[in-house]
Amino acid sequence: MPVAPLDSDAAALVNRYCEARQLTERLASKLSPEDQTVQSMPDASPTKWHRAHVTWFFETFVLTPYERRVSGRPFEPHHPEYNYLFNSYYEAVGERHPRAQRGLVTRPGAEEIGQYRRATDERVVSLIRGADQDLLVELAPILELGRHHEQQHQELILMDIKHMFSASSMEPIYAEAVHDVATDPGPAAWIDFDGGVVPIGRAAEADGFSFDNEGPQHDVLLRPFRLADRLVTAGEWLRFIADGGYHRPELWLSDGWYTRLDAGWEAPLYWRQDPVSSKGSASVNGSSDGGAETWRVHTLHGTRAVDPHEPVCHVSFYEADAYATWAGKRLATEFEWEHAVGERPISGQLLSADVSSSLHPLGAGPPTGELRQIYGTCWEWTESPYRPYPGYRPPAGAIGEYNGKFMINTMVSRGGCAFTPPGHIRPTYRNFFHPHTRWHLSGVRLAADV
Amino acid sequence: MPVAPLDSDAAALVNRYCEARQLTERLASKLSPEDQTVQSMPDASPTKWHRAHVTWFFETFVLTPYERRVSGRPFEPHHPEYNYLFNSYYEAVGERHPRAQRGLVTRPGAEEIGQYRRATDERVVSLIRGADQDLLVELAPILELGRHHEQQHQELILMDIKHMFSASSMEPIYAEAVHDVATDPGPAAWIDFDGGVVPIGRAAEADGFSFDNEGPQHDVLLRPFRLADRLVTAGEWLRFIADGGYHRPELWLSDGWYTRLDAGWEAPLYWRQDPVSSKGSASVNGSSDGGAETWRVHTLHGTRAVDPHEPVCHVSFYEADAYATWAGKRLATEFEWEHAVGERPISGQLLSADVSSSLHPLGAGPPTGELRQIYGTCWEWTESPYRPYPGYRPPAGAIGEYNGKFMINTMVSRGGCAFTPPGHIRPTYRNFFHPHTRWHLSGVRLAADV
Amino acid sequence: MPVAPLDSDAAALVNRYCEARQLTERLASKLSPEDQTVQSMPDASPTKWHRAHVTWFFETFVLTPYERRVSGRPFEPHHPEYNYLFNSYYEAVGERHPRAQRGLVTRPGAEEIGQYRRATDERVVSLIRGADQDLLVELAPILELGRHHEQQHQELILMDIKHMFSASSMEPIYAEAVHDVATDPGPAAWIDFDGGVVPIGRAAEADGFSFDNEGPQHDVLLRPFRLADRLVTAGEWLRFIADGGYHRPELWLSDGWYTRLDAGWEAPLYWRQDPVSSKGSASVNGSSDGGAETWRVHTLHGTRAVDPHEPVCHVSFYEADAYATWAGKRLATEFEWEHAVGERPISGQLLSADVSSSLHPLGAGPPTGELRQIYGTCWEWTESPYRPYPGYRPPAGAIGEYNGKFMINTMVSRGGCAFTPPGHIRPTYRNFFHPHTRWHLSGVRLAADV
Amino acid sequence: MPVAPLDSDAAALVNRYCEARQLTERLASKLSPEDQTVQSMPDASPTKWHRAHVTWFFETFVLTPYERRVSGRPFEPHHPEYNYLFNSYYEAVGERHPRAQRGLVTRPGAEEIGQYRRATDERVVSLIRGADQDLLVELAPILELGRHHEQQHQELILMDIKHMFSASSMEPIYAEAVHDVATDPGPAAWIDFDGGVVPIGRAAEADGFSFDNEGPQHDVLLRPFRLADRLVTAGEWLRFIADGGYHRPELWLSDGWYTRLDAGWEAPLYWRQDPVSSKGSASVNGSSDGGAETWRVHTLHGTRAVDPHEPVCHVSFYEADAYATWAGKRLATEFEWEHAVGERPISGQLLSADVSSSLHPLGAGPPTGELRQIYGTCWEWTESPYRPYPGYRPPAGAIGEYNGKFMINTMVSRGGCAFTPPGHIRPTYRNFFHPHTRWHLSGVRLAADV
Repeated sequence: MPVAPLDSDAAALVNRYCEARQLTERLASKLSPEDQTVQSMPDASPTKWHRAHVTWFFETFVLTPYERRVSGRPFEPHHPEYNYLFNSYYEAVGERHPRAQRGLVTRPGAEEIGQYRRATDERVVSLIRGADQDLLVELAPILELGRHHEQQHQELILMDIKHMFSASSMEPIYAEAVHDVATDPGPAAWIDFDGGVVPIGRAAEADGFSFDNEGPQHDVLLRPFRLADRLVTAGEWLRFIADGGYHRPELWLSDGWYTRLDAGWEAPLYWRQDPVSSKGSASVNGSSDGGAETWRVHTLHGTRAVDPHEPVCHVSFYEADAYATWAGKRLATEFEWEHAVGERPISGQLLSADVSSSLHPLGAGPPTGELRQIYGTCWEWTESPYRPYPGYRPPAGAIGEYNGKFMINTMVSRGGCAFTPPGHIRPTYRNFFHPHTRWHLSGVRLAADV
Repeated sequence: MPVAPLDSDAAALVNRYCEARQLTERLASKLSPEDQTVQSMPDASPTKWHRAHVTWFFETFVLTPYERRVSGRPFEPHHPEYNYLFNSYYEAVGERHPRAQRGLVTRPGAEEIGQYRRATDERVVSLIRGADQDLLVELAPILELGRHHEQQHQELILMDIKHMFSASSMEPIYAEAVHDVATDPGPAAWIDFDGGVVPIGRAAEADGFSFDNEGPQHDVLLRPFRLADRLVTAGEWLRFIADGGYHRPELWLSDGWYTRLDAGWEAPLYWRQDPVSSKGSASVNGSSDGGAETWRVHTLHGTRAVDPHEPVCHVSFYEADAYATWAGKRLATEFEWEHAVGERPISGQLLSADVSSSLHPLGAGPPTGELRQIYGTCWEWTESPYRPYPGYRPPAGAIGEYNGKFMINTMVSRGGCAFTPPGHIRPTYRNFFHPHTRWHLSGVRLAADV
Repeated sequence: MPVAPLDSDAAALVNRYCEARQLTERLASKLSPEDQTVQSMPDASPTKWHRAHVTWFFETFVLTPYERRVSGRPFEPHHPEYNYLFNSYYEAVGERHPRAQRGLVTRPGAEEIGQYRRATDERVVSLIRGADQDLLVELAPILELGRHHEQQHQELILMDIKHMFSASSMEPIYAEAVHDVATDPGPAAWIDFDGGVVPIGRAAEADGFSFDNEGPQHDVLLRPFRLADRLVTAGEWLRFIADGGYHRPELWLSDGWYTRLDAGWEAPLYWRQDPVSSKGSASVNGSSDGGAETWRVHTLHGTRAVDPHEPVCHVSFYEADAYATWAGKRLATEFEWEHAVGERPISGQLLSADVSSSLHPLGAGPPTGELRQIYGTCWEWTESPYRPYPGYRPPAGAIGEYNGKFMINTMVSRGGCAFTPPGHIRPTYRNFFHPHTRWHLSGVRLAADV
Repeated sequence: MPVAPLDSDAAALVNRYCEARQLTERLASKLSPEDQTVQSMPDASPTKWHRAHVTWFFETFVLTPYERRVSGRPFEPHHPEYNYLFNSYYEAVGERHPRAQRGLVTRPGAEEIGQYRRATDERVVSLIRGADQDLLVELAPILELGRHHEQQHQELILMDIKHMFSASSMEPIYAEAVHDVATDPGPAAWIDFDGGVVPIGRAAEADGFSFDNEGPQHDVLLRPFRLADRLVTAGEWLRFIADGGYHRPELWLSDGWYTRLDAGWEAPLYWRQDPVSSKGSASVNGSSDGGAETWRVHTLHGTRAVDPHEPVCHVSFYEADAYATWAGKRLATEFEWEHAVGERPISGQLLSADVSSSLHPLGAGPPTGELRQIYGTCWEWTESPYRPYPGYRPPAGAIGEYNGKFMINTMVSRGGCAFTPPGHIRPTYRNFFHPHTRWHLSGVRLAADV
């Protein structure tokens, strides 16, 4: 939720709006109508649903209340049924199509949803252009929220398509990519921090956008701690596997252990073991015997051998925590992470605006003596349950359902990932997932007491 | 399975083959790529899967063993992965994509499957045209089986699409149709039959195609019986509902009652009650008070009011049996049905080759003193469990899995329905469904002892 | 249901009544209050529930309608809550405690249920003794039904306790027994029958008790057939296992194959494979190598090695059918079985009145040139679905729910088993189980066409 | 885990041991063997299992490692199978009987478990009496842990029996009690606290027992806050219900809302609505119209009308949180609770040693200007997820599984309840339950920012 005045210049608003809208269409353009229709699990959604839902968001929270003030005519929905079909979880906005059945709705198709998007874009742009300064000031924060909302769904589109493609023996490829074999990032080094009473969360007076769950800013007492300078690598994870990590209950939280047993986890999501050894692939023992079983990994660039120098990805909180226990370390709290990151520049392996960036986590590169891989690459599990900050109040109305009602049973992740659009990550950004979740780009950074 | 010599003239074989193949494409042409992709429940399959699977059947059972004899080259599959993706349930042919996950496979898309169909058609037609007389004699029965197999899937395409469309609040329409309000078919009349020892099943020496499960012909001892001259109507079913039929356990088989409770059945599948009365619609009490709740029905021609003169459709065996108990009657055995139907001409409300026929069951029309609605309209539940006839042996090899292994827990239905392609129904034809099944066009004809 | 006059002499009625009631208590006396309380699966019931339910049956169908005619006072239930707790499935008698939660009710305890039984026995005996001849004639059939009902539950008590004990690593023993190693029954021999039009079912005018589902007697047309002279042995079943019987889908009905996969069946229920070879035990290969894995079987006399000469027991219909297919044979129809058995004397391994008989199926003994093991030992699966005979009508009122409503999805078994009380089996007796059921004493007799 | 020297005087150790052991038997003595056998849900356990498991704990962690040092003989288990049957969740101690099947094990029965308890008591007491001072110092902490472990199971016995009795239409009564109608506790008043950096958790040097999860002591920064001086009452909860509290999603966390929908919650667990109004009972509207529906509550003293002055009990965290949102307040953090409670004397409605105390939460009594109902009555939900304190390390070995592995997906509760044995509650005591849990005595105290 924006907590400070935003740029309310009409041209800038239009630009920012269109930029975000175009990236969504660029992501979808690599997918067939069939690809855009399917929902591979209740947590995921079809691409064409994502494309429509983010459009519905603008229709509902921008056009419905404000369009009349410029057009002088009562608001007319694009289609009377779309409010039912494309509302995600806003109870205050009315009944919804059941989440787990989004994949059963074939009409409107991908092309009609394209029309819905274009028509809505025209109406939103007309509204901005026709708005006086007072209205622009009102519109700016909700447009900005809609833009960041659409960016979240851009990340979800990639997560969900990756999951859906993994169910096909055809091994579909979302985008071609030259796979650069990662260079050895070297052993992890520790960076120490002093702790003390530190401010956490977004300051009320800060510039730029943030979500409501990033505030209020408040003081937290930290003890001295240290963070690993890079993410845990696939090679390190292979040693965890080889040491029986998936078969030693003493390393696991109890709920995690039973989740692992029920789901039959033996490795990160999207890893599978093939009987044939490929040149350059990782083996559990790291040995060179040609017959060893090797691990392959499903990516949006196709299936290839696990690279021991790349960061491990698609692990649940339970696995991350078990790994940390095995390593004799722990995960960071979200407060330690935020404090450690401080005012560092926001750069890293994020999604490029032309979707030409690598869609698989890249290696950390050579040691720098500084924290590496802070932003982008993989969301970092923290050991902090996702709960409201002291004094937090959700906004009034339907928008209040955006974040607050999910503050239970989930763990905070920080830092963004390779699917995160540029401009969509901040030091105070709090993402959250249930601890069994694995279909997002999740990685592990170790922490320890000093 | 063909039990008698078939016409093995090459031109006739090509014609028959192409005719069946074209109808499938005609059915699919009314559907978007999105429509063809989705699987709405494990029992149903996506249209594009059906289109590919019936093609795989010809590739597997015609091209794989025989093409080489004409081409002189080893058989090459169209695509190495299709045998895995499009095998339905033939254990002997190898591993298969899980049935319940057919809707997760977006590639090949509808267009690529069109290419697969066209390429296979070319190869099959070339094979037939290049075959000598000996080979034609070998090919004829398997081509005929493949043709009838494809016809079964034509019916499934319509059943499955109807089910999928019912999950959408958009109320998609498969085909426009003028709805002719059914004329009053009059009260059901009884037609009596003498019984005695009668032949049942397909004679080994009969002409034309039949499935293996229709034989061997054998004698059955029948007691005198009578059949209603028409199917039970929607109006009669409304009286069953109004009389508490769905809430009186004494009318139901025990498994049926618990199925009803679990599923919350209150009416046939696809009926729903709307608060607003429409002109000409059916009300439970048949009264004319404008405020009465009315029933509407989802059809492939859209949603409209239930017509009391049309036959009831989409009821489970459990409901059919409960209705018969309520009416003080019973269902016919499959032997009574077959004997009663005898050598009557095969006509009725079947699917027309140009898909212009009504896709919703039509009324019986005026009484004729004869059995009405025998073929087409609705599959008629019988009280006979689906079991092998005495002396039945499934054919050797994978084809032996076609029918025999389903002879348990299912009940025989007879007579075809409005989705059945012409030429695909016979007096000895045995269809079968689990007793809770409702997504096929199932109807009810009453029987009684004399 | 009794279809002919029964002995309505009061003393005889009292004797028969008490005899049946005493056997139940004799069976329960070997069990602790804890043993009598637990329900190990929804299909099974606690012993103390069985003891109370059969008592409720007499209270409901004998005392409630008739006691007043002798006592002159309005009927008073023993306890106002027992009608709710101990009604099994009679919808017409009112609401019931949920079947799957019978094991949650600890009060009344085993001792209070003993009091309920004794109090009810006193009232029933008083009623009989006080009845005039007209009343005796009315009472006789319902007392007889109650007696046979109680006998069915005696068999269920043993089945259910056997199942419950199998869940305990303590390997509880219900009754001590000297295990006589079975003698070699020799290879199965075939007994041929002519077929023809034969009468099936209980004649309306026959003496003695029968259930309603055994009639009406009617003619059935049989083809010539043959039956094996004995049940399939455990040794034969071991060869089926060794030949991959549980891993060859081509032998199985489709529903059976998926049931096997889901449940992980690798052998009959209660068989388990132990790593240590015991002297005299069966091994899959029949070889004498001491290290071979051996099969052990849980019985009411404790756990011991599978004896290759004993009949196989606790197999589902699916397994029985797969075995027959593997052997190139089939199961008998229930009509073939009944016709073959004819008027043979009713004797075999049944439950003895003092519960001293073996509670594990015994071997067939040496060949006799006649059918062996017809009555008792194991219920024989037939290939006949359980459906009403032509002209069958359930009795009016709640008693009509006794049999008729279960005539779907179940297969007929014939001949009784080692748990069947004496006097409780007849040539026309039709038992029925769902095809996946294994916790009753079920065995296999092969049949074939001549 | 004891963190400071305990009294290691042998006589005192024996006394403390026996006292705890006797209370368990006193609780069980009110239950029949049948009552002690049943498990009503996977989260609950049979009473006789609890009695055996706490005995196994002493056998495993006291006798197994130490007995030999006094007896000079190798340790012999009481029964070779008990380690399998009565291990709860200690992976390091070996395989276990499946938790959800504890109710299937009837043998050993209640009486044999009494023998196991007596035999173990003799061995433990002999060990203590025979120990030299060095051994006593080693034994003291593990005996103390076993004692507190047994006390936890005393509380569980009452929770589990209450749940099991609720499934019976017989409405069993665990103990008779005069129900004192609660006096009006008056409106809740607020007590303010300053916050600041405060110590939280058990100091390493503190006297007496504590669990490992209560430490290490560490500083926490608190903001000023206030607590209600008493628990929320049933009368207040009735107003929440009347105001649509269970039907307004905007009040609920998202996971809570879906849990409520799935489970059909309309009121606290054990409340049910009866059509007949009883004198003095609570009605939703508080009106005096005799026909109003009234709420009744299942207690260990039987079922009676809900008393509006008693505290609400058996609500989930989700309900507690929704109530607080409805009231415009929040729950306390566990740190606020601990700081507010400080060094107040430990007294309240706890379980009396002779089990004569009320087993249903009592009213707060008249206002005192101080916090009321701190200890006992109901466990108070806090808004704190249960996570390790900074620097927490589980103890080595199997005992390390006692607490640490449950530190996920659960919320901390504080203060004990009416089932908590005396001596078993402390200001630093952290109990924890999944947020959907309702079968423990859980209540609600409101908090707010100053």
